Amino acid sequence: MLRTHTCGQLNISDVGTTVTLCGWLQRARDLGGMTFIDLRDRYGITQLAFNMVTDAALLADARKLSREYVIQVTGIVIERSSKNLKVPTGEIEIEVKTLNVLNAAKLPPFTIEDDTDGGDDIRMQFRYLDIRRNAVKQNLLLRHKVCQLTRSYLDQQGFIEIETPVLIKSTPEGARDFVVPSRMNAGEFYALPQSPQTFKQLLMVAGMDKYFQIVKCFRDEDLRADRQPEFTQIDCEMSFIEQDDILQVFEGLTSYIFKNIHQINLPNFERISYQTAMNLYGNDKPDMRFEMKFVDLKSTVIGRNFKVFDDASYVVGIVAPKCANYTRKQLDELTDFVKRPQIGATGLVYIRCNDDGSIKSSIDKFYSENDLQSIAQTSNAKAGDLILILAGALNKTQKAMSELRLEMGQRLGLRTPGVYKPIWVVDFPLLEFNEEQNRFFAMHHPFTSPKTDDFHLLESNPGAVRANAYDLVINGVEIGGGSIRIHDKQLQNKMFNLLGFTPEEAQEQFGFLLNAFEFGAPPHGGIAFGLDRLCSMIGGTDSIRDFIAFPKNNAGRDVMIDAPSAIDQKQLSELSIAVIK
Amino acid sequence: MLRTHTCGQLNISDVGTTVTLCGWLQRARDLGGMTFIDLRDRYGITQLAFNMVTDAALLADARKLSREYVIQVTGIVIERSSKNLKVPTGEIEIEVKTLNVLNAAKLPPFTIEDDTDGGDDIRMQFRYLDIRRNAVKQNLLLRHKVCQLTRSYLDQQGFIEIETPVLIKSTPEGARDFVVPSRMNAGEFYALPQSPQTFKQLLMVAGMDKYFQIVKCFRDEDLRADRQPEFTQIDCEMSFIEQDDILQVFEGLTSYIFKNIHQINLPNFERISYQTAMNLYGNDKPDMRFEMKFVDLKSTVIGRNFKVFDDASYVVGIVAPKCANYTRKQLDELTDFVKRPQIGATGLVYIRCNDDGSIKSSIDKFYSENDLQSIAQTSNAKAGDLILILAGALNKTQKAMSELRLEMGQRLGLRTPGVYKPIWVVDFPLLEFNEEQNRFFAMHHPFTSPKTDDFHLLESNPGAVRANAYDLVINGVEIGGGSIRIHDKQLQNKMFNLLGFTPEEAQEQFGFLLNAFEFGAPPHGGIAFGLDRLCSMIGGTDSIRDFIAFPKNNAGRDVMIDAPSAIDQKQLSELSIAVIK
Repeated sequence: MLRTHTCGQLNISDVGTTVTLCGWLQRARDLGGMTFIDLRDRYGITQLAFNMVTDAALLADARKLSREYVIQVTGIVIERSSKNLKVPTGEIEIEVKTLNVLNAAKLPPFTIEDDTDGGDDIRMQFRYLDIRRNAVKQNLLLRHKVCQLTRSYLDQQGFIEIETPVLIKSTPEGARDFVVPSRMNAGEFYALPQSPQTFKQLLMVAGMDKYFQIVKCFRDEDLRADRQPEFTQIDCEMSFIEQDDILQVFEGLTSYIFKNIHQINLPNFERISYQTAMNLYGNDKPDMRFEMKFVDLKSTVIGRNFKVFDDASYVVGIVAPKCANYTRKQLDELTDFVKRPQIGATGLVYIRCNDDGSIKSSIDKFYSENDLQSIAQTSNAKAGDLILILAGALNKTQKAMSELRLEMGQRLGLRTPGVYKPIWVVDFPLLEFNEEQNRFFAMHHPFTSPKTDDFHLLESNPGAVRANAYDLVINGVEIGGGSIRIHDKQLQNKMFNLLGFTPEEAQEQFGFLLNAFEFGAPPHGGIAFGLDRLCSMIGGTDSIRDFIAFPKNNAGRDVMIDAPSAIDQKQLSELSIAVIK
Repeated sequence: MLRTHTCGQLNISDVGTTVTLCGWLQRARDLGGMTFIDLRDRYGITQLAFNMVTDAALLADARKLSREYVIQVTGIVIERSSKNLKVPTGEIEIEVKTLNVLNAAKLPPFTIEDDTDGGDDIRMQFRYLDIRRNAVKQNLLLRHKVCQLTRSYLDQQGFIEIETPVLIKSTPEGARDFVVPSRMNAGEFYALPQSPQTFKQLLMVAGMDKYFQIVKCFRDEDLRADRQPEFTQIDCEMSFIEQDDILQVFEGLTSYIFKNIHQINLPNFERISYQTAMNLYGNDKPDMRFEMKFVDLKSTVIGRNFKVFDDASYVVGIVAPKCANYTRKQLDELTDFVKRPQIGATGLVYIRCNDDGSIKSSIDKFYSENDLQSIAQTSNAKAGDLILILAGALNKTQKAMSELRLEMGQRLGLRTPGVYKPIWVVDFPLLEFNEEQNRFFAMHHPFTSPKTDDFHLLESNPGAVRANAYDLVINGVEIGGGSIRIHDKQLQNKMFNLLGFTPEEAQEQFGFLLNAFEFGAPPHGGIAFGLDRLCSMIGGTDSIRDFIAFPKNNAGRDVMIDAPSAIDQKQLSELSIAVIK
């Protein structure tokens, strides 16, 4: 051991002890006959003191050091004259007796400080320096803790962590599979798993009963700002259970993690149906930290010759509390907001319910004060409130109003950081219809089971069939989701039929799972949480990248190691492939 | 929940309780008016009783079931008339009231029994059925436990688990890299890591101090019987430490795992140098459960006109205790053993030290009784012992004698199952000379540090330089290894020079790590354990495959899912590659 203590360990009770510390030079201050150095390691910062009177040569050596030098010092713990009570080591310093430079350091391209001067790109390129900063370091420590808590919780619940293979088989469905040429099997390829879905179902057939895994998954898709080509899931599957059992286990897990990390008790996990979520929030991932529920106004506003409303299949309002006094400018901002191309509304209607009981709107031309009062009543708006209304086609207008609701929540400070409102969204539709291809697709995947109550609709009205599928949403962010699987062969065949598979196609694509199901598949279901997303939620930021040690950028590149990159011809030949540009 | 209890849970204290169980039909026995069914799940087996008198219809239903049917039963726990005290549930059975078939099952292609009738190939193809067998299931449970213990131990020691990327960069050294074409970066490839070596070193530069990870690694090589293209490592790295610190932590970890799984205290971890291991056991992975050390006999046997010994650069003996009475047949077997091509000795010399003090050998023609007594004395052989001698070139003869020693240990029952003798082999050579390419290669990797005492030999006699490198060996099996790394740039450059790299080549291949080292690299070192190997050692078998849920065969194929496989032209085109056979 090159040290006796870490830089986060010593305090007033250690005064008089001779210690050896190692670390990086965070900063140095020269004050006449003294030099003070903040020595940093993973655990904290300890102040080193060099004194011209005691040891002029040592002081001179200390003054030759630069930021981020790696040094080892031996000295005596003494009480500081000017204490810093904000840090655990702030009452002491080390009177240094010997100084040993373990390694020199070039000046880093950005400051290793909480408030760094480095931009995103340079910090990604020098990620190993960025990790030295408290913010990034704490994120990685948090991620470690979340994983430890997850494993100990699930282990206590009888779950077994089982590693599933990374080199698997590509399927025709796997358009976004990463593939891996096999040297030993020329012309053949492995695929990297988008999830361990089939393997965890096989483990249920294998009788493992309760499986989990914290596992890397891979998806070769155009990356949105917040996607990574490799990402990590907390993946689970259980046998002989019903939906409620899974929800309970994972409520328990989520509460356990929040309790241990934030020392808070999460509130009850409400459950709302997909349909209710869409009706009330226009979104299957509603932020439940505030109300501002949708009000369907179509029947209230129809028939006043206001073409925008009369022609719209859907007219929806929300009530922004105490916003009746919004200025023209504020209302224009909101109108601009909803008209942005990514939101796509054509306009915004507002009704001010003034404090004095009067009412004023942007549609006064078409609606009498009585009409407006009636809208206010339907919306449950009170004096002082502002009603905001959008109209148009259902899906598009729901989506736009959902964005406006979130924007208003933000403006009104209702999306309080540190407040967590978890919710289960349940009863997702089994299928979604793709207009382009004129056929149904599985909303979750083809092994998701329909609700027993809706069996009778499978043939007459497949689009209305609800699935035993569920998502966990916290503060408007989807943390994970899953479903109860089909374990009955007849039902599975019917499902493939609905999805337009011939029996031969089903066999070709899912053969090994279907075969396995013939040897005694238990009723089973599961769930997967996005670990990166869960960590960023717990850490209180939006970016999952901050919680990954070595993330890739939006082009799927690791700019630190410069990957991907060309490989040489010899290697390509050995793999029996060629590059075709 | 479809059950109130598992099949491993109920005992005599539950008599009278109404319970619901789910599981697989292990076996059924029809005895006149009764049918007994063993119901199996992950947790155990519980006996179900059906009675013609109580419920003839139910009995008839039960008799329609076949092996591996998945059923749910409700009934009352009753005391058995004929108890089986070997299983925890053996004192009770369930008097079944209702029976529900959850899923039918085709007859499995092999019996789901401890002693199965299925061969290796069929069990691999139906791995999900093989996992239902106790042997395989227990191996997976053991692996889970080893992982949990590892994580909790290292967490308690302040280690942080950090995920390193799976999609990394291929290097020219990486001839055995699996590569992954990037769709978004046409003509470019990621590589799958053979180990997280460079990333864990970067994490030390990043100040993370104590890192670990249980992590998948990948190597595209011709597979020996006991290698897998994807395998799992317990990977660690520490900063500000010396070799002894790493050995202590991982001795602690190993002891902790054995203590918790086998309830045994491992003996002291002896440390022997590579050179001593080679001299005494002809092997850097000696099985220390028995002695039978090598004796160098060259100087004792020389000069008696026995050409085989006189011409050999190395003559080595071992003493097989109490084997003087080996028959001609037994000695012929040993001779055949050492002459096998994979061992490659040309012959075997023996000396019997008879119980009566007389001595007799296969070289009596050349050696007098006095000569033989002198060999026996040098070998420390006692009356009743058998001396076995090989001669030839050093390396080849060491290897052959090592095999013979293990064979004798086996024959004499000295390699006792359940006895564990861990040992650290230290002071490995830094470099090994490759005759073919006429240059040195790093024995471990180019970042392994030489021992300070041997710095002076780096230029004059590089082959003699010892490294700060170490392996953990238990019972002749290498569990893991590691080294203290170079953190000094001058020394690193000297090392590259020794390995025949130009500065440009070093920069091209290891640039991002070398650059990182310029920004303040702490002294650091690490180790990696093979998890698959560790589990098979703890589980008491030789095959790592038994401890992997879904292993691949010797051709790198997963025969269950039939991977790797061809992919379609569209997918190849999207990836900008073509197959060239």
